[in-house]
Amino acid sequence: MSREGRDLEVLARLLGGRGLEGPGDDAALLRGPGDLLLTMDPLVEGVHYEPGTAVARIAHKLLHRNLSDLAAMEARPKAILASFVFGSGWTDGERDELYEELARECERVGTRWIGGDLASTKGTTVLTLCALGSPAARAPILRSGLAPGMNLHVSGPLGGSLASGRHLDFEAKLALGARLAEHHGPAAMMDLSDGLALDLGRMLRASGGLGARLTEARIPLNHDVKTVDAALHDGEDYELLFALNPSQEVQLSEDPEVPEAAKIIIGEVVAEPGILLLGDQGERIVVSETGFEHELS
Amino acid sequence: MSREGRDLEVLARLLGGRGLEGPGDDAALLRGPGDLLLTMDPLVEGVHYEPGTAVARIAHKLLHRNLSDLAAMEARPKAILASFVFGSGWTDGERDELYEELARECERVGTRWIGGDLASTKGTTVLTLCALGSPAARAPILRSGLAPGMNLHVSGPLGGSLASGRHLDFEAKLALGARLAEHHGPAAMMDLSDGLALDLGRMLRASGGLGARLTEARIPLNHDVKTVDAALHDGEDYELLFALNPSQEVQLSEDPEVPEAAKIIIGEVVAEPGILLLGDQGERIVVSETGFEHELS
Repeated sequence: MSREGRDLEVLARLLGGRGLEGPGDDAALLRGPGDLLLTMDPLVEGVHYEPGTAVARIAHKLLHRNLSDLAAMEARPKAILASFVFGSGWTDGERDELYEELARECERVGTRWIGGDLASTKGTTVLTLCALGSPAARAPILRSGLAPGMNLHVSGPLGGSLASGRHLDFEAKLALGARLAEHHGPAAMMDLSDGLALDLGRMLRASGGLGARLTEARIPLNHDVKTVDAALHDGEDYELLFALNPSQEVQLSEDPEVPEAAKIIIGEVVAEPGILLLGDQGERIVVSETGFEHELS
Repeated sequence: MSREGRDLEVLARLLGGRGLEGPGDDAALLRGPGDLLLTMDPLVEGVHYEPGTAVARIAHKLLHRNLSDLAAMEARPKAILASFVFGSGWTDGERDELYEELARECERVGTRWIGGDLASTKGTTVLTLCALGSPAARAPILRSGLAPGMNLHVSGPLGGSLASGRHLDFEAKLALGARLAEHHGPAAMMDLSDGLALDLGRMLRASGGLGARLTEARIPLNHDVKTVDAALHDGEDYELLFALNPSQEVQLSEDPEVPEAAKIIIGEVVAEPGILLLGDQGERIVVSETGFEHELS
């Protein structure tokens, strides 16, 4: 198990047992007169982006990485706070560009940058965002809603995100998350940040230790990706993974607002733990639940 | 001007003009069915704590540094999110201790740790918290409420915080902030993180470019501090700075819940910009508005 995986189990014991009102899903719920969903993710230089990356792409990824967690919980973005710890490489002009790009992108997606903090270090740049969203009228769709017999879908093609640079330019699937939640009632949903294998494994465990059978030929791949392994393990796709009851498939397939890739049934949930890939020649391959874990890079 | 000072002016132009609903005060206001005050501050290794600092003290400072911003806005802490980017020096046991200490201290002060993120880096450790609080029934007390003739107070002795290690052990003045707000109606309030000179300068500018006359003999000093310069410029005191109309002084002086140091009038607000220190021999010293700016360390 990875270091983060171990630590998340420690934290679940320490803070958990309260479902959404604690760690474990894409965003945390804060109950109040107006419920809020909150998420907080950093971009670390050398981990989530390489030194020399264009500032506009850094700003874009920082925002959409956080909004993607809100999309997975069908939350409408409401505000962000930013804590920027700048390493020594940043010029005044580059910092201004980061602020301007982030402010502009916030405006474009309809959220507001309301506060935060600035600091400097001789060490690594760490840019952290906290994003707050208003939950949809219905209860948020969690990772833990899977049951045997449900169909699995992903919102778009997977794989090759890091090699291609797509990990810097993706758009959080806010509209699709809301559309799915409002019209198709997924039983479970999350965003794919660490690869289908690792993230589906998390969803299966959160749902009580279930398993999945994936059909290799149905997993949508990006045009520059050669093998299904990339879709399973590359990570940083930021597509949505969701599950439907079979009775809901017709309605999904007829919805013009849902992209074609998201209508493909890539597999099904089964009672037996573990993820099996059903190959083109009928072979059954056990999928290792590993993916892109940031600590490894 | 410091790099952060310059950047904050850029951000004020970019995001500002909305008073509290934007950057500039100790916490940002998010309006909604239940208003929230939000703050987000990091602890950076080598900047806010030295490598080798006891983990429990790191956890304590991380939480109270954020709660201090809520104290300055009379907000009752409601929840925190944490984004931890660990450098390579952290053992499993040390990370567990950080989680446990932070969870324990959250419970002690009556707040909950509801979510966040974990990551690893070969670079510097950056531990970031976002703290959310419920504002008091009345409108939050801002930095911008000063007017000429008002008296200035600080909540406790200043100076020597870094040299003594007090910067790791202070308690956010949550109870006092609420007491002052509820019973004494300060016209302006903020927490002192960067030294009285720099932070008072910020408060005077936020109030339209006013000035202050401080009485050297009345500025409360920590026992291990020799000169008023330490109180003015060391920073990291995390005491509250507040202003009262003279008519409110009797009530403050008679409140047993307010510590004696906080009842001392250390100076007054004047129309002419700049901070003057009135020395023991009647001399008038222009105070440089510099303090502990983290980028310098």
